[in-house]
Amino acid sequence: MKMALAQNGLDLLFLEARTHNAWRAEPVDDALLEQVYETARWAPTMGNTQPLRVVFVKSPEAKARLKPHLMQGNVDKTMSAPVTAIIAGDTNFHEQMATLAPHAPGMKDHFAGMPAEARAAIALQGSSLQGAYFIVAARALGLDCGPMAGFNRDGVDAEFLAGTPWKSNFLLNLGHGDPAGVRPRAPRLDSSFATRIL
Amino acid sequence: MKMALAQNGLDLLFLEARTHNAWRAEPVDDALLEQVYETARWAPTMGNTQPLRVVFVKSPEAKARLKPHLMQGNVDKTMSAPVTAIIAGDTNFHEQMATLAPHAPGMKDHFAGMPAEARAAIALQGSSLQGAYFIVAARALGLDCGPMAGFNRDGVDAEFLAGTPWKSNFLLNLGHGDPAGVRPRAPRLDSSFATRIL
Repeated sequence: MKMALAQNGLDLLFLEARTHNAWRAEPVDDALLEQVYETARWAPTMGNTQPLRVVFVKSPEAKARLKPHLMQGNVDKTMSAPVTAIIAGDTNFHEQMATLAPHAPGMKDHFAGMPAEARAAIALQGSSLQGAYFIVAARALGLDCGPMAGFNRDGVDAEFLAGTPWKSNFLLNLGHGDPAGVRPRAPRLDSSFATRIL
Repeated sequence: MKMALAQNGLDLLFLEARTHNAWRAEPVDDALLEQVYETARWAPTMGNTQPLRVVFVKSPEAKARLKPHLMQGNVDKTMSAPVTAIIAGDTNFHEQMATLAPHAPGMKDHFAGMPAEARAAIALQGSSLQGAYFIVAARALGLDCGPMAGFNRDGVDAEFLAGTPWKSNFLLNLGHGDPAGVRPRAPRLDSSFATRIL
């Protein structure tokens, strides 16, 4: 029988993990942020395309540039979070395929020949997959997470990603959460509704 | 200091986990498939939309219906896998918002008022996030995974999802892998390339 995670691991990553809205002042080291990425990057993407790109907004100056692009309800928690990651996807991910898929030399041209919208959909799919791996890896390494969709995407892209083919997907507050800021847990769909076995 | 996962947990989920291409004959219980979903479902989605829907293709009859829609290189491994999950997104996810977000009663109408393409993008983002959580949860519960993008999406949707607003995102073989079928590991992007700290 293959190893499985112990109950406290399942609790940490999934069953008792919660979205955080308030943060303790404890900072987060740059080395830990890199470790989260370097853990998450091993999980799979379509054809090993790995479109995830991450901008960690950490300094007060960078946080101030982010503030005007946040939905009102996300301002306080984001400004008080030790770090806010811009989880982005590289729409020109195919430029890296010679490095990423040396076993499949035609992949760069294959993706380059697609319509831009098809590549954008792959970047959205892949940066979402990798953004999810990133959340789980952050929790596995002892960080709390606060993902958010409530921001001005074009504004964030213009402010932080101008001159790159990177497009923001979601924002993710990272740090050590204050449990007092956690909201009541919203319901989840039952497997009897969301799954079928044929 | 908050609990973090032990090294063997990081290895199981990320650092030593591999995409599997060959499968031992050991079956996978339906209850374990449900447990994977019911573990993954607790991880976050935009506005708690939870668009993930999963069709587990398990019986020989269902597998035979899947076969003609697979890319040639994916046929043998998929036909020999104990289960192939169709990881799908519900483009009408907003129909469940009264259940999922009782704290935010306007959400169903908010999403209903969007163009269909915007809802499709949310379904793609969310089913990718949840598909990634599903992969990590499956590994956490002792299963091996073999995700695939190489299939005829329209064909699979017509064969398995007709009459529903569910759209396939990727396929995922599940079972107990034979390490002999694992391929050499492809490179990953360094944090110095894929991330920035501001």
